[in-house]
Amino acid sequence: MTTQELVAQIHEKQSFLCIGLDVDLNKIPKHLLDKEDPIFEFNKAIIDATHHLAVAYKPNTAFYEAYGIKGWKSLEKTITYLNANYPEVFTIADAKRGDIGNTSTMYAKAFFEDLEFDSVTVAPYMGKDSVEPFLAFENKHTILLALTSNQGAFDFQTKNVEGKELYKQVLEVSKSYKNSKNLMYVVGATKAEFIGEIRKIIPDSFLLVPGVGAQGGNLQEVCRYGLNDQVGLLINSSRGIIYASDGADYAKAAAEKALELQKQMENILKS
Amino acid sequence: MTTQELVAQIHEKQSFLCIGLDVDLNKIPKHLLDKEDPIFEFNKAIIDATHHLAVAYKPNTAFYEAYGIKGWKSLEKTITYLNANYPEVFTIADAKRGDIGNTSTMYAKAFFEDLEFDSVTVAPYMGKDSVEPFLAFENKHTILLALTSNQGAFDFQTKNVEGKELYKQVLEVSKSYKNSKNLMYVVGATKAEFIGEIRKIIPDSFLLVPGVGAQGGNLQEVCRYGLNDQVGLLINSSRGIIYASDGADYAKAAAEKALELQKQMENILKS
Repeated sequence: MTTQELVAQIHEKQSFLCIGLDVDLNKIPKHLLDKEDPIFEFNKAIIDATHHLAVAYKPNTAFYEAYGIKGWKSLEKTITYLNANYPEVFTIADAKRGDIGNTSTMYAKAFFEDLEFDSVTVAPYMGKDSVEPFLAFENKHTILLALTSNQGAFDFQTKNVEGKELYKQVLEVSKSYKNSKNLMYVVGATKAEFIGEIRKIIPDSFLLVPGVGAQGGNLQEVCRYGLNDQVGLLINSSRGIIYASDGADYAKAAAEKALELQKQMENILKS
Repeated sequence: MTTQELVAQIHEKQSFLCIGLDVDLNKIPKHLLDKEDPIFEFNKAIIDATHHLAVAYKPNTAFYEAYGIKGWKSLEKTITYLNANYPEVFTIADAKRGDIGNTSTMYAKAFFEDLEFDSVTVAPYMGKDSVEPFLAFENKHTILLALTSNQGAFDFQTKNVEGKELYKQVLEVSKSYKNSKNLMYVVGATKAEFIGEIRKIIPDSFLLVPGVGAQGGNLQEVCRYGLNDQVGLLINSSRGIIYASDGADYAKAAAEKALELQKQMENILKS
Protein backbone atom coordinates (compact mmCIF):
# COMPACT_ATOMS: atom_id res chain seq x y z
CA MET A 1 0.00 0.00 0.00
CA THR A 2 1.25 3.47 -0.82
CA THR A 3 1.25 6.29 1.72
CA GLN A 4 -1.16 8.14 -0.58
CA GLU A 5 -3.66 5.29 -0.36
CA LEU A 6 -3.39 5.31 3.42
CA VAL A 7 -3.99 9.07 3.52
CA ALA A 8 -6.99 8.75 1.19
CA GLN A 9 -8.47 6.08 3.44
CA ILE A 10 -8.02 8.31 6.49
CA HIS A 11 -9.94 11.11 4.82
CA GLU A 12 -12.67 8.78 3.60
CA LYS A 13 -13.24 7.19 7.02
CA GLN A 14 -12.45 10.37 8.94
CA SER A 15 -10.36 8.17 11.18
CA PHE A 16 -6.71 7.47 11.88
CA LEU A 17 -7.46 4.66 14.29
CA CYS A 18 -5.35 1.50 14.40
CA ILE A 19 -6.75 -1.45 16.32
CA GLY A 20 -4.21 -3.67 18.06
CA LEU A 21 -5.09 -7.36 17.80
CA ASP A 22 -3.22 -8.53 20.90
CA VAL A 23 -5.35 -11.55 21.59
CA ASP A 24 -4.93 -13.44 24.84
CA LEU A 25 -6.95 -16.65 25.28
CA ASN A 26 -7.37 -15.78 28.96
CA LYS A 27 -9.17 -12.55 28.10
CA ILE A 28 -11.51 -13.41 25.23
CA PRO A 29 -15.15 -14.45 25.79
CA LYS A 30 -15.33 -17.98 27.15
CA HIS A 31 -17.79 -19.24 24.54
CA LEU A 32 -15.11 -18.81 21.84
CA LEU A 33 -12.82 -21.35 23.46
CA ASP A 34 -14.91 -24.21 22.00
CA LYS A 35 -14.21 -23.05 18.45
CA GLU A 36 -11.49 -24.65 16.35
CA ASP A 37 -9.49 -21.41 16.20
CA PRO A 38 -10.71 -19.09 18.96
CA ILE A 39 -8.15 -16.37 18.20
CA PHE A 40 -9.10 -16.12 14.55
CA GLU A 41 -12.83 -16.20 15.38
CA PHE A 42 -12.29 -13.37 17.82
CA ASN A 43 -10.25 -11.31 15.33
CA LYS A 44 -12.73 -11.91 12.49
CA ALA A 45 -15.66 -10.65 14.55
CA ILE A 46 -13.70 -7.60 15.78
CA ILE A 47 -12.56 -6.76 12.24
CA ASP A 48 -16.03 -7.20 10.73
CA ALA A 49 -17.52 -4.93 13.39
CA THR A 50 -14.89 -2.17 13.20
CA HIS A 51 -13.42 -2.07 9.67
CA HIS A 52 -15.37 1.08 8.74
CA LEU A 53 -14.04 2.90 11.80
CA ALA A 54 -10.36 1.91 11.68
CA VAL A 55 -7.76 2.41 8.97
CA ALA A 56 -5.24 -0.09 10.29
CA TYR A 57 -4.98 -3.36 12.23
CA LYS A 58 -1.91 -4.33 14.18
CA PRO A 59 -1.52 -7.88 15.47
CA ASN A 60 1.37 -8.11 17.92
CA THR A 61 3.22 -11.28 16.93
CA ALA A 62 4.10 -12.17 20.53
CA PHE A 63 0.49 -13.06 21.26
CA TYR A 64 0.46 -15.52 18.37
CA GLU A 65 3.92 -17.04 18.87
CA ALA A 66 3.01 -17.83 22.47
CA TYR A 67 0.64 -20.50 21.08
CA GLY A 68 3.24 -22.02 18.76
CA ILE A 69 2.21 -23.32 15.34
CA LYS A 70 -1.47 -22.94 16.25
CA GLY A 71 -0.88 -19.28 17.00
CA TRP A 72 1.11 -18.75 13.81
CA LYS A 73 -1.84 -20.25 11.89
CA SER A 74 -4.22 -17.82 13.61
CA LEU A 75 -1.96 -14.96 12.54
CA GLU A 76 -1.82 -16.20 8.97
CA LYS A 77 -5.60 -16.60 8.82
CA THR A 78 -6.07 -13.11 10.26
CA ILE A 79 -3.87 -11.36 7.71
CA THR A 80 -5.30 -13.44 4.87
CA TYR A 81 -8.82 -12.51 5.98
CA LEU A 82 -7.90 -8.83 6.14
CA ASN A 83 -6.27 -8.80 2.71
CA ALA A 84 -9.13 -10.74 1.09
CA ASN A 85 -12.04 -8.82 2.63
CA TYR A 86 -10.72 -5.37 3.48
CA PRO A 87 -7.79 -4.72 1.13
CA GLU A 88 -8.11 -0.96 1.75
CA VAL A 89 -6.97 -1.44 5.34
CA PHE A 90 -3.32 -0.85 6.33
CA THR A 91 -1.82 -3.87 8.10
CA ILE A 92 0.99 -3.78 10.63
CA ALA A 93 2.93 -6.79 11.90
CA ASP A 94 4.00 -5.56 15.32
CA ALA A 95 7.01 -7.82 15.48
CA LYS A 96 9.83 -5.51 16.62
CA ARG A 97 12.36 -7.48 14.59
CA GLY A 98 15.90 -6.56 13.62
CA ASP A 99 19.08 -8.54 12.89
CA ILE A 100 22.20 -8.34 10.73
CA GLY A 101 21.68 -7.71 7.00
CA ASN A 102 21.00 -11.12 5.45
CA THR A 103 18.95 -12.14 8.47
CA SER A 104 16.79 -9.01 8.40
CA THR A 105 16.09 -9.87 4.76
CA MET A 106 14.62 -13.17 5.97
CA TYR A 107 12.36 -11.31 8.43
CA ALA A 108 11.31 -8.89 5.72
CA LYS A 109 10.37 -11.82 3.49
CA ALA A 110 8.43 -13.42 6.34
CA PHE A 111 6.23 -10.38 6.91
CA PHE A 112 6.11 -8.70 3.50
CA GLU A 113 6.08 -11.73 1.18
CA ASP A 114 4.93 -14.78 3.11
CA LEU A 115 2.29 -13.04 5.26
CA GLU A 116 1.76 -10.01 2.99
CA PHE A 117 1.61 -7.35 5.67
CA ASP A 118 1.91 -3.73 4.53
CA SER A 119 4.33 -2.90 7.31
CA VAL A 120 6.39 -4.28 10.17
CA THR A 121 7.79 -2.72 13.34
CA VAL A 122 11.59 -2.88 13.63
CA ALA A 123 13.97 -2.25 16.54
CA PRO A 124 16.83 0.17 15.77
CA TYR A 125 19.57 -1.08 18.13
CA MET A 126 21.58 -2.92 15.45
CA GLY A 127 21.64 0.07 13.10
CA LYS A 128 21.66 0.65 9.37
CA ASP A 129 22.23 -2.79 7.90
CA SER A 130 19.56 -4.26 10.18
CA VAL A 131 16.92 -1.77 8.94
CA GLU A 132 17.72 -1.24 5.25
CA PRO A 133 16.72 -4.78 4.14
CA PHE A 134 13.15 -3.95 5.23
CA LEU A 135 13.25 -0.59 3.43
CA ALA A 136 14.16 -2.28 0.15
CA PHE A 137 10.58 -3.51 -0.38
CA GLU A 138 8.53 -1.16 -2.53
CA ASN A 139 5.20 0.05 -1.14
CA LYS A 140 5.97 -1.67 2.16
CA HIS A 141 6.62 0.34 5.30
CA THR A 142 9.13 -0.08 8.09
CA ILE A 143 7.96 1.32 11.41
CA LEU A 144 11.07 1.98 13.46
CA LEU A 145 10.90 2.07 17.27
CA ALA A 146 11.90 5.57 18.36
CA LEU A 147 10.26 6.43 21.68
CA THR A 148 8.19 3.64 23.19
CA SER A 149 5.37 4.09 25.69
CA ASN A 150 6.68 1.89 28.49
CA GLN A 151 8.60 2.81 31.63
CA GLY A 152 11.75 1.10 30.29
CA ALA A 153 11.91 3.76 27.55
CA PHE A 154 13.79 5.88 30.10
CA ASP A 155 16.56 3.28 30.47
CA PHE A 156 18.20 4.14 27.15
CA GLN A 157 15.91 5.96 24.68
CA THR A 158 15.84 9.26 26.55
CA LYS A 159 19.52 9.21 27.53
CA ASN A 160 21.74 11.94 26.14
CA VAL A 161 23.81 10.73 23.20
CA GLU A 162 26.31 13.26 21.95
CA GLY A 163 24.05 16.19 22.70
CA LYS A 164 20.59 14.79 22.11
CA GLU A 165 18.38 11.97 23.33
CA LEU A 166 18.99 8.53 21.82
CA TYR A 167 15.50 8.42 20.26
CA LYS A 168 16.28 11.68 18.45
CA GLN A 169 19.55 10.18 17.21
CA VAL A 170 17.54 7.24 15.90
CA LEU A 171 15.24 9.63 14.02
CA GLU A 172 18.16 11.67 12.62
CA VAL A 173 20.38 8.76 11.64
CA SER A 174 17.56 6.73 10.08
CA LYS A 175 16.78 9.61 7.70
CA SER A 176 20.07 8.82 5.94
CA TYR A 177 19.18 5.15 5.38
CA LYS A 178 18.56 4.01 1.83
CA ASN A 179 14.84 4.24 0.92
CA SER A 180 14.13 6.14 4.13
CA LYS A 181 10.91 7.38 2.52
CA ASN A 182 9.52 3.96 3.53
CA LEU A 183 10.05 4.73 7.23
CA MET A 184 7.39 5.40 9.82
CA TYR A 185 8.11 5.63 13.56
CA VAL A 186 6.69 4.31 16.83
CA VAL A 187 6.25 7.19 19.26
CA GLY A 188 4.54 6.54 22.58
CA ALA A 189 1.60 8.75 23.52
CA THR A 190 2.51 8.89 27.19
CA LYS A 191 5.05 11.55 26.22
CA ALA A 192 2.88 13.84 24.08
CA GLU A 193 5.11 16.81 24.83
CA PHE A 194 7.98 15.07 23.02
CA ILE A 195 5.97 14.76 19.80
CA GLY A 196 6.49 18.42 18.95
CA GLU A 197 10.25 17.90 19.15
CA ILE A 198 9.95 14.79 17.03
CA ARG A 199 7.98 16.62 14.35
CA LYS A 200 10.88 19.07 13.96
CA ILE A 201 13.14 16.18 12.95
CA ILE A 202 10.68 14.18 10.84
CA PRO A 203 7.93 16.59 9.73
CA ASP A 204 6.57 14.36 6.97
CA SER A 205 6.69 10.84 8.38
CA PHE A 206 3.78 8.85 9.74
CA LEU A 207 3.91 8.18 13.48
CA LEU A 208 2.36 5.06 14.98
CA VAL A 209 1.27 6.10 18.45
CA PRO A 210 0.48 3.41 21.01
CA GLY A 211 -0.56 4.18 24.55
CA VAL A 212 -3.77 6.15 23.98
CA GLY A 213 -6.17 4.60 26.47
CA ALA A 214 -4.75 1.70 28.46
CA GLN A 215 -1.30 3.30 28.68
CA GLY A 216 -2.64 6.78 29.56
CA GLY A 217 -1.95 8.93 26.50
CA ASN A 218 -4.25 11.78 25.53
CA LEU A 219 -5.58 11.97 21.98
CA GLN A 220 -6.04 15.76 21.88
CA GLU A 221 -2.50 16.39 23.07
CA VAL A 222 -0.98 13.93 20.64
CA CYS A 223 -2.84 15.49 17.72
CA ARG A 224 -1.93 19.02 18.76
CA TYR A 225 1.76 18.18 18.43
CA GLY A 226 1.65 15.35 15.90
CA LEU A 227 -0.72 16.13 13.02
CA ASN A 228 0.85 17.19 9.74
CA ASP A 229 -0.66 18.07 6.37
CA GLN A 230 -0.98 14.36 5.46
CA VAL A 231 -2.47 13.69 8.92
CA GLY A 232 0.68 11.69 9.65
CA LEU A 233 -0.68 9.83 12.66
CA LEU A 234 -1.93 6.35 13.34
CA ILE A 235 -3.30 6.11 16.86
CA ASN A 236 -3.34 2.59 18.22
CA SER A 237 -5.72 1.21 20.78
CA SER A 238 -5.65 -2.46 21.69
CA ARG A 239 -7.12 -3.57 25.01
CA GLY A 240 -9.45 -0.56 25.31
CA ILE A 241 -11.28 -1.71 22.19
CA ILE A 242 -10.95 -5.47 21.86
CA TYR A 243 -11.67 -6.23 25.52
CA ALA A 244 -14.49 -3.67 25.90
CA SER A 245 -16.74 -6.60 26.84
CA ASP A 246 -15.98 -10.22 27.70
CA GLY A 247 -19.51 -11.34 26.90
CA ALA A 248 -21.20 -12.50 23.70
CA ASP A 249 -21.53 -8.82 22.70
CA TYR A 250 -17.75 -8.28 22.54
CA ALA A 251 -17.66 -7.27 18.87
CA LYS A 252 -20.51 -4.79 19.30
CA ALA A 253 -18.84 -3.35 22.39
CA ALA A 254 -15.56 -3.05 20.49
CA ALA A 255 -17.33 -1.19 17.68
CA GLU A 256 -18.84 1.24 20.21
CA LYS A 257 -15.42 2.01 21.65
CA ALA A 258 -13.95 2.37 18.16
CA LEU A 259 -16.79 4.69 17.20
CA GLU A 260 -16.08 6.91 20.21
CA LEU A 261 -12.47 7.29 19.08
CA GLN A 262 -13.43 7.73 15.42
CA LYS A 263 -15.85 10.54 16.37
CA GLN A 264 -13.12 12.30 18.35
CA MET A 265 -10.80 11.94 15.37
CA GLU A 266 -13.42 13.27 12.98
CA ASN A 267 -13.84 16.35 15.16
CA ILE A 268 -10.10 16.87 15.24
CA LEU A 269 -9.76 16.48 11.47
CA LYS A 270 -12.58 18.96 10.89
CA SER A 271 -11.29 21.58 13.30
CA MET B 1 19.56 -25.76 32.21
CA THR B 2 21.67 -24.24 34.97
CA THR B 3 24.88 -22.34 34.27
CA GLN B 4 26.72 -25.02 36.25
CA GLU B 5 25.45 -27.72 33.89
CA LEU B 6 26.61 -25.67 30.92
CA VAL B 7 30.06 -25.22 32.44
CA ALA B 8 30.33 -28.94 33.22
CA GLN B 9 29.45 -29.76 29.62
CA ILE B 10 32.12 -27.36 28.36
CA HIS B 11 34.77 -29.11 30.45
CA GLU B 12 33.59 -32.56 29.42
CA LYS B 13 33.60 -31.79 25.70
CA GLN B 14 36.58 -29.40 25.92
CA SER B 15 34.56 -27.11 23.73
CA PHE B 16 32.62 -23.88 24.00
CA LEU B 17 31.38 -24.03 20.45
CA CYS B 18 27.86 -22.97 19.52
CA ILE B 19 26.60 -23.94 16.07
CA GLY B 20 24.22 -21.51 14.41
CA LEU B 21 21.42 -23.27 12.55
CA ASP B 22 20.65 -20.48 10.05
CA VAL B 23 19.26 -22.66 7.34
CA ASP B 24 18.54 -21.21 3.93
CA LEU B 25 16.87 -23.50 1.36
CA ASN B 26 18.99 -21.86 -1.35
CA LYS B 27 22.19 -23.00 0.33
CA ILE B 28 21.54 -26.56 1.48
CA PRO B 29 22.41 -29.60 -0.64
CA LYS B 30 19.96 -29.96 -3.52
CA HIS B 31 19.10 -33.60 -2.81
CA LEU B 32 17.44 -32.56 0.47
CA LEU B 33 14.85 -30.46 -1.33
CA ASP B 34 12.89 -33.62 -2.21
CA LYS B 35 12.39 -34.44 1.49
CA GLU B 36 9.17 -33.56 3.27
CA ASP B 37 10.97 -31.16 5.62
CA PRO B 38 14.37 -30.29 4.09
CA ILE B 39 15.30 -27.84 6.86
CA PHE B 40 14.72 -30.35 9.63
CA GLU B 41 16.52 -33.11 7.71
CA PHE B 42 19.47 -30.78 7.27
CA ASN B 43 19.50 -29.76 10.95
CA LYS B 44 19.13 -33.34 12.18
CA ALA B 45 22.13 -34.52 10.15
CA ILE B 46 24.25 -31.54 11.27
CA ILE B 47 23.30 -32.09 14.93
CA ASP B 48 23.94 -35.85 14.81
CA ALA B 49 27.36 -35.25 13.27
CA THR B 50 28.49 -32.46 15.61
CA HIS B 51 26.77 -32.90 19.01
CA HIS B 52 29.96 -34.24 20.66
CA LEU B 53 31.92 -31.19 19.47
CA ALA B 54 29.46 -28.40 20.29
CA VAL B 55 27.88 -27.39 23.59
CA ALA B 56 25.12 -25.23 22.11
CA TYR B 57 22.90 -24.88 19.05
CA LYS B 58 21.41 -21.59 17.97
CA PRO B 59 18.67 -21.50 15.34
CA ASN B 60 18.04 -17.95 14.18
CA THR B 61 14.26 -17.65 14.05
CA ALA B 62 14.30 -15.38 10.97
CA PHE B 63 15.36 -18.27 8.78
CA TYR B 64 12.34 -20.30 9.93
CA GLU B 65 9.76 -17.50 9.92
CA ALA B 66 10.66 -16.72 6.31
CA TYR B 67 8.99 -20.04 5.39
CA GLY B 68 5.82 -19.36 7.36
CA ILE B 69 4.06 -22.19 9.19
CA LYS B 70 6.25 -24.76 7.45
CA GLY B 71 9.32 -22.99 8.79
CA TRP B 72 7.87 -22.73 12.28
CA LYS B 73 7.25 -26.51 12.15
CA SER B 74 10.88 -27.10 11.16
CA LEU B 75 11.96 -25.00 14.15
CA GLU B 76 9.68 -26.92 16.50
CA LYS B 77 10.92 -30.27 15.20
CA THR B 78 14.54 -29.12 15.57
CA ILE B 79 14.22 -28.05 19.21
CA THR B 80 12.15 -31.15 20.04
CA TYR B 81 14.82 -33.34 18.45
CA LEU B 82 17.59 -31.59 20.39
CA ASN B 83 15.77 -31.86 23.72
CA ALA B 84 14.85 -35.52 23.17
CA ASN B 85 18.21 -36.77 21.91
CA TYR B 86 20.82 -34.41 23.30
CA PRO B 87 19.33 -32.92 26.47
CA GLU B 88 22.83 -31.98 27.70
CA VAL B 89 23.12 -29.40 24.92
CA PHE B 90 22.36 -25.71 25.59
CA THR B 91 19.76 -24.34 23.18
CA ILE B 92 19.46 -20.72 22.07
CA ALA B 93 16.51 -19.21 20.21
CA ASP B 94 18.22 -16.36 18.37
CA ALA B 95 15.05 -14.30 18.13
CA LYS B 96 16.17 -10.81 19.24
CA ARG B 97 12.75 -10.14 20.77
CA GLY B 98 11.68 -7.40 23.18
CA ASP B 99 8.42 -5.56 23.84
CA ILE B 100 6.53 -3.92 26.70
CA GLY B 101 6.07 -6.00 29.85
CA ASN B 102 2.99 -8.16 29.25
CA THR B 103 4.00 -8.69 25.63
CA SER B 104 7.54 -9.77 26.51
CA THR B 105 5.94 -12.33 28.82
CA MET B 106 4.18 -13.79 25.77
CA TYR B 107 7.51 -14.03 23.92
CA ALA B 108 9.12 -15.64 26.95
CA LYS B 109 6.33 -18.23 27.04
CA ALA B 110 6.74 -18.86 23.31
CA PHE B 111 10.43 -19.70 23.60
CA PHE B 112 10.79 -21.05 27.15
CA GLU B 113 7.49 -22.93 27.56
CA ASP B 114 6.06 -23.72 24.13
CA LEU B 115 9.36 -24.46 22.38
CA GLU B 116 11.38 -25.28 25.53
CA PHE B 117 14.56 -23.46 24.58
CA ASP B 118 17.11 -22.89 27.36
CA SER B 119 17.67 -19.29 26.29
CA VAL B 120 16.57 -16.52 23.97
CA THR B 121 18.32 -13.44 22.60
CA VAL B 122 16.64 -10.14 23.52
CA ALA B 123 17.10 -6.56 22.22
CA PRO B 124 17.66 -3.94 24.94
CA TYR B 125 16.20 -0.80 23.32
CA MET B 126 12.90 -0.85 25.27
CA GLY B 127 14.64 -1.21 28.65
CA LYS B 128 13.89 -2.85 31.97
CA ASP B 129 10.26 -3.91 31.68
CA SER B 130 10.94 -5.42 28.24
CA VAL B 131 13.74 -7.62 29.58
CA GLU B 132 12.63 -8.62 33.11
CA PRO B 133 9.73 -10.85 31.97
CA PHE B 134 12.31 -13.13 30.34
CA LEU B 135 14.51 -13.08 33.45
CA ALA B 136 11.63 -14.31 35.61
CA PHE B 137 11.97 -17.88 34.28
CA GLU B 138 14.11 -20.08 36.50
CA ASN B 139 17.02 -21.91 34.87
CA LYS B 140 16.32 -20.10 31.62
CA HIS B 141 18.77 -17.55 30.23
CA THR B 142 18.24 -14.19 28.57
CA ILE B 143 21.00 -13.24 26.16
CA LEU B 144 20.91 -9.47 25.81
CA LEU B 145 22.30 -7.75 22.72
CA ALA B 146 25.16 -5.54 23.85
CA LEU B 147 27.67 -5.11 21.02
CA THR B 148 26.71 -6.81 17.78
CA SER B 149 29.13 -7.86 15.04
CA ASN B 150 27.62 -5.94 12.13
CA GLN B 151 28.60 -2.58 10.65
CA GLY B 152 25.36 -1.00 11.94
CA ALA B 153 26.63 -1.53 15.50
CA PHE B 154 28.45 1.78 15.05
CA ASP B 155 25.18 3.68 14.41
CA PHE B 156 24.12 3.67 18.05
CA GLN B 157 25.84 0.99 20.17
CA THR B 158 29.24 2.63 20.24
CA LYS B 159 27.95 6.19 20.61
CA ASN B 160 28.82 8.05 23.77
CA VAL B 161 25.94 8.06 26.26
CA GLU B 162 26.58 10.18 29.31
CA GLY B 163 30.28 9.35 29.40
CA LYS B 164 30.39 5.81 28.08
CA GLU B 165 29.36 3.86 25.00
CA LEU B 166 25.73 2.81 24.76
CA TYR B 167 26.63 -0.89 24.84
CA LYS B 168 28.45 -0.32 28.15
CA GLN B 169 25.37 1.48 29.48
CA VAL B 170 23.34 -1.57 28.48
CA LEU B 171 25.73 -3.81 30.41
CA GLU B 172 25.72 -1.54 33.49
CA VAL B 173 22.00 -0.85 33.61
CA SER B 174 21.00 -4.47 32.99
CA LYS B 175 22.97 -5.57 36.05
CA SER B 176 20.31 -3.85 38.16
CA TYR B 177 17.42 -5.77 36.56
CA LYS B 178 15.57 -8.28 38.72
CA ASN B 179 17.08 -11.79 38.35
CA SER B 180 20.02 -10.38 36.41
CA LYS B 181 21.92 -13.57 37.29
CA ASN B 182 19.97 -15.08 34.36
CA LEU B 183 21.61 -12.67 31.90
CA MET B 184 24.17 -13.48 29.25
CA TYR B 185 25.27 -11.03 26.55
CA VAL B 186 25.84 -10.97 22.80
CA VAL B 187 29.25 -9.48 22.05
CA GLY B 188 30.53 -9.47 18.49
CA ALA B 189 33.96 -10.95 17.82
CA THR B 190 34.87 -8.37 15.21
CA LYS B 191 35.69 -6.05 18.10
CA ALA B 192 37.85 -8.36 20.25
CA GLU B 193 39.64 -5.39 21.80
CA PHE B 194 36.34 -4.29 23.36
CA ILE B 195 35.88 -7.59 25.17
CA GLY B 196 38.48 -6.67 27.81
CA GLU B 197 36.48 -3.54 28.61
CA ILE B 198 33.30 -5.57 28.74
CA ARG B 199 34.82 -8.07 31.15
CA LYS B 200 35.50 -5.23 33.62
CA ILE B 201 31.76 -4.52 33.77
CA ILE B 202 30.45 -8.08 33.73
CA PRO B 203 33.30 -10.34 34.88
CA ASP B 204 31.11 -13.36 35.62
CA SER B 205 28.55 -13.45 32.81
CA PHE B 206 28.58 -15.72 29.80
CA LEU B 207 29.18 -13.98 26.48
CA LEU B 208 27.73 -15.32 23.25
CA VAL B 209 30.21 -14.32 20.56
CA PRO B 210 29.13 -14.39 16.92
CA GLY B 211 31.39 -13.40 14.09
CA VAL B 212 34.24 -15.89 14.45
CA GLY B 213 34.78 -17.10 10.91
CA ALA B 214 32.40 -15.63 8.33
CA GLN B 215 32.34 -12.24 10.03
CA GLY B 216 36.10 -12.10 10.57
CA GLY B 217 36.63 -12.46 14.33
CA ASN B 218 39.68 -14.17 15.77
CA LEU B 219 39.25 -16.97 18.32
CA GLN B 220 42.59 -16.47 20.09
CA GLU B 221 41.99 -12.76 20.58
CA VAL B 222 38.46 -13.24 21.85
CA CYS B 223 39.62 -15.84 24.38
CA ARG B 224 42.55 -13.71 25.55
CA TYR B 225 40.13 -10.98 26.58
CA GLY B 226 36.97 -12.96 27.26
CA LEU B 227 37.72 -16.15 29.20
CA ASN B 228 36.85 -16.16 32.88
CA ASP B 229 37.13 -18.84 35.57
CA GLN B 230 33.88 -20.46 34.40
CA VAL B 231 35.10 -20.21 30.79
CA GLY B 232 32.27 -17.70 30.25
CA LEU B 233 32.28 -17.84 26.46
CA LEU B 234 30.11 -19.43 23.82
CA ILE B 235 31.65 -18.94 20.39
CA ASN B 236 29.16 -19.17 17.58
CA SER B 237 29.87 -20.29 14.06
CA SER B 238 27.05 -20.68 11.54
CA ARG B 239 27.84 -20.57 7.84
CA GLY B 240 31.47 -21.66 8.29
CA ILE B 241 30.27 -24.99 9.68
CA ILE B 242 26.85 -25.77 8.25
CA TYR B 243 27.73 -24.81 4.68
CA ALA B 244 31.21 -26.39 4.69
CA SER B 245 30.03 -28.54 1.79
CA ASP B 246 26.96 -28.38 -0.42
CA GLY B 247 27.27 -32.02 -1.46
CA ALA B 248 25.97 -35.25 0.07
CA ASP B 249 28.89 -35.12 2.53
CA TYR B 250 27.66 -31.88 4.15
CA ALA B 251 27.26 -33.32 7.65
CA LYS B 252 30.71 -34.92 7.57
CA ALA B 253 32.22 -31.66 6.29
CA ALA B 254 30.42 -29.74 9.05
CA ALA B 255 31.83 -32.14 11.65
CA GLU B 256 35.35 -31.59 10.29
CA LYS B 257 35.00 -27.82 10.59
CA ALA B 258 33.53 -28.18 14.07
CA LEU B 259 36.39 -30.49 15.07
CA GLU B 260 38.92 -27.89 13.93
CA LEU B 261 37.33 -25.30 16.20
CA GLN B 262 36.92 -27.76 19.08
CA LYS B 263 40.62 -28.66 18.89
CA GLN B 264 41.58 -24.99 19.01
CA MET B 265 39.29 -24.54 22.00
CA GLU B 266 40.77 -27.58 23.74
CA ASN B 267 44.24 -26.12 23.31
CA ILE B 268 43.09 -22.79 24.71
CA LEU B 269 41.38 -24.43 27.71
CA LYS B 270 44.52 -26.48 28.47
CA SER B 271 46.94 -23.58 28.18
